[in-house]
Amino acid sequence: MSRQQLTVADLGELELLRRLRPFCAPHGLGDDAAVLPPRSQSQVITTDVLVNGVHFSDRTTPPDAVGWRAIAANLSDLAAMGARPVGVTVGLALPSDTPLAWIEGVYGGMADCLQAYGGEIIGGDVARSSQKVLSITAVGEVSPQRVIRRDRAQAGQVILATGWHGLSHAGLELLLQPERQQDLPIVACDTFIQAHQRPVPRFDVIHQLATWSDDQLSAIAGMDSSDGLANAVLWLCQASGLGARLQRSRLPIAPALTRWMGEQTALDWCLYGGEDFELVLCLSTDSAQQLLVTLGAGASIIGTIETDSQVLLIDDVGQEPDLALTWDGCFQHF
Amino acid sequence: MSRQQLTVADLGELELLRRLRPFCAPHGLGDDAAVLPPRSQSQVITTDVLVNGVHFSDRTTPPDAVGWRAIAANLSDLAAMGARPVGVTVGLALPSDTPLAWIEGVYGGMADCLQAYGGEIIGGDVARSSQKVLSITAVGEVSPQRVIRRDRAQAGQVILATGWHGLSHAGLELLLQPERQQDLPIVACDTFIQAHQRPVPRFDVIHQLATWSDDQLSAIAGMDSSDGLANAVLWLCQASGLGARLQRSRLPIAPALTRWMGEQTALDWCLYGGEDFELVLCLSTDSAQQLLVTLGAGASIIGTIETDSQVLLIDDVGQEPDLALTWDGCFQHF
Repeated sequence: MSRQQLTVADLGELELLRRLRPFCAPHGLGDDAAVLPPRSQSQVITTDVLVNGVHFSDRTTPPDAVGWRAIAANLSDLAAMGARPVGVTVGLALPSDTPLAWIEGVYGGMADCLQAYGGEIIGGDVARSSQKVLSITAVGEVSPQRVIRRDRAQAGQVILATGWHGLSHAGLELLLQPERQQDLPIVACDTFIQAHQRPVPRFDVIHQLATWSDDQLSAIAGMDSSDGLANAVLWLCQASGLGARLQRSRLPIAPALTRWMGEQTALDWCLYGGEDFELVLCLSTDSAQQLLVTLGAGASIIGTIETDSQVLLIDDVGQEPDLALTWDGCFQHF
Repeated sequence: MSRQQLTVADLGELELLRRLRPFCAPHGLGDDAAVLPPRSQSQVITTDVLVNGVHFSDRTTPPDAVGWRAIAANLSDLAAMGARPVGVTVGLALPSDTPLAWIEGVYGGMADCLQAYGGEIIGGDVARSSQKVLSITAVGEVSPQRVIRRDRAQAGQVILATGWHGLSHAGLELLLQPERQQDLPIVACDTFIQAHQRPVPRFDVIHQLATWSDDQLSAIAGMDSSDGLANAVLWLCQASGLGARLQRSRLPIAPALTRWMGEQTALDWCLYGGEDFELVLCLSTDSAQQLLVTLGAGASIIGTIETDSQVLLIDDVGQEPDLALTWDGCFQHF
C-alpha cells in the first residue's frame, strides 16, 4: 500500500504516534506528560478547538493550512497577552479513514508555524471520532508585570488595530466560490487567501512592546481580534467598564476589499468577519503613534475609549447615523 | 422554555460561557489566555481526548461521570509523573442540540474531581460539531529532581501495581448489559460501576512518595495504567531497554471478578481492559514493601524487571506455559 493511501486505521495508534514524532520536541512524548523546566516568568495557557466543516474544510484549507491556522490561532492568544510561545499540546479526534498524508500535512503546517514564531509540540493525544477535531493548547511565558489584559482600558485612550480586518473572511469567500477570483486582481486574491490560510500572529508587535518600560506597558489594554474587530472592542470595553467611539473612516478596511465588495459588505467583514488575528490595543495617543510608525499598512487608530458604556460607530463624514455595536452582531459558534 | 430543555443553540456561545463560569477559577476566563504565576517547580502538561460513543455514552456514563472521568484521566497522568494538579483547560466540541443540563452536568463532575484532588478550570474553548468531543489539558507541578519517568527501570527491581485491574472494564460491561448485574452481589456491582464512572487518580500514592528522599525517589520508574496493565509494563520495559517477568498468581485480579467471569476473562480484563488509572511502579523490593503497607486491597508486587527485552507472564503454579505479552494485545484507539 502506498504511503498516500495509508489511513490511521491501517497504522494503529502506536504506529501513527511514531510517524508524528519527527514533528515534535525531540525529548517529549515518552512519558505520561510533558515536563517543562522551572521558569521565573508567568505561564500563559490557552486552548482553541477547530472542527472540520466549521473552522476548516477540504474545499478551503489544505492540511498544512489547517495545522498552521490551528497553531496561529493559539499563538495569537499568547501574543495578545504579551507572552512568547513555549510549547503546544495537540488533541486530535479523527475518523478511522483519515489518510496519514492528511495528518502529516497538518503536523507539517503546525511545525512550520512554531518554527516561525517559537515553541514546540510537547505532547498530545489522538482518538477515534466521526468528524475531524483539533484541540490545541498553547503555553507561553511573560514577565508577571508585563502581562497585557483586557480590563485596563482607560477613558481618553485611543484604540489601535494593528492591521487590515476582513481579509480572512474575504479569502474564505474566494475559496468557497473560486469563480469570484476572476473579479479580482491576482495580488488581491493571493493576499486574501493567504490571510485565511496562513494568518500571522502579531509577535512583531509584541517585540516592539518589549522595548517599552513596565510603566508604559502596564497602561495598555489589549486582546486579539480572532472573533472580529467589533467583538474585540466590545470585550475591551465591557472588561474595563467603559465605552468607545469608533470612526468609520478610520476602520482598517483594505481599499481592495471595498473595491471588490462595496462599502457595506467590506464594513461588515471588517467588524464581524473574524479570524484576522490582529491585535486591538487601548493606549495613550503618544504610545499609539510610537507603535504605528513600526506597523505596516492597515494599522490604524480607529477610535477612542469613552466613559459611558456604549460602543458607537460614528460616520465622521456625516453621511450615516451613528451605529451602536452590540454582541448580537458578533460571531456565534452555535 | 425550562432549563432542562435549553440547548447550546438556544443559548449561543456567550451565554453558554456565562453559565459555565461558576464552575471555573474565579478570576479566569476574562482574557485571551489564563495566567499562572511564576513557580519554582517544573511544569507538567498532559492532554486527553474523549469522544462520545468511544470513551463514554449516554448508556454508560451520566454527564457528571463524563466530567469526572475526563479530569481523572488527566490528573492520573500528572500523578504518574509525581506532580500535583494546578489547573486544566477544557476544549469542547458539541452538537448544537446538546442540552445545557448535560454540559452543566459535565462541568459539575469536572469541578467535583478537581475539588477532590486539586486544580481549577482555568480556561477553554467551545465549538460546534456533529459529535461530542472533550479535550482536556491538565497542568501540574513537581520539583525537578522528583519527576517520575518511564525510562528508569533497572534489572532486579520489582514491579508494583497500586490496585486491582480490570474493574473499570467490568463496570463498563455491566452498564452495557444491565441484565448481567443479576449474576453479581450488589457490592461487586457497585464497585465495578464506580471504578468505571468515578475512577480515582492515585494521589494518595504520590503523597506517600512525597515523604521519600530524592535518592529513593529517583530510583523509581513509573506510569499510570490508563491503557491497561500490560501496556504499562510494556512501556516501562521498552523505555528502559529491559524486560519483565510477571507472576500470574500475583496479578491484581479481584476475586469477585474471577468468580463472575472466570479466570481467563478476568486475566484478559486485568491485562488489557484499561482505564483503571492505577500506578505501575518499578522500584527496589524494600521500597515496594514500604509502599505496600500503605496501599489498599489489590496492590501487589506483580513481577520483576529483567535484563532481556521480553515481557513474560509466568504461571508460577505450573499449569500454563509462559506467555509473552506484546503490544498487539493492547488497546488500539483506531
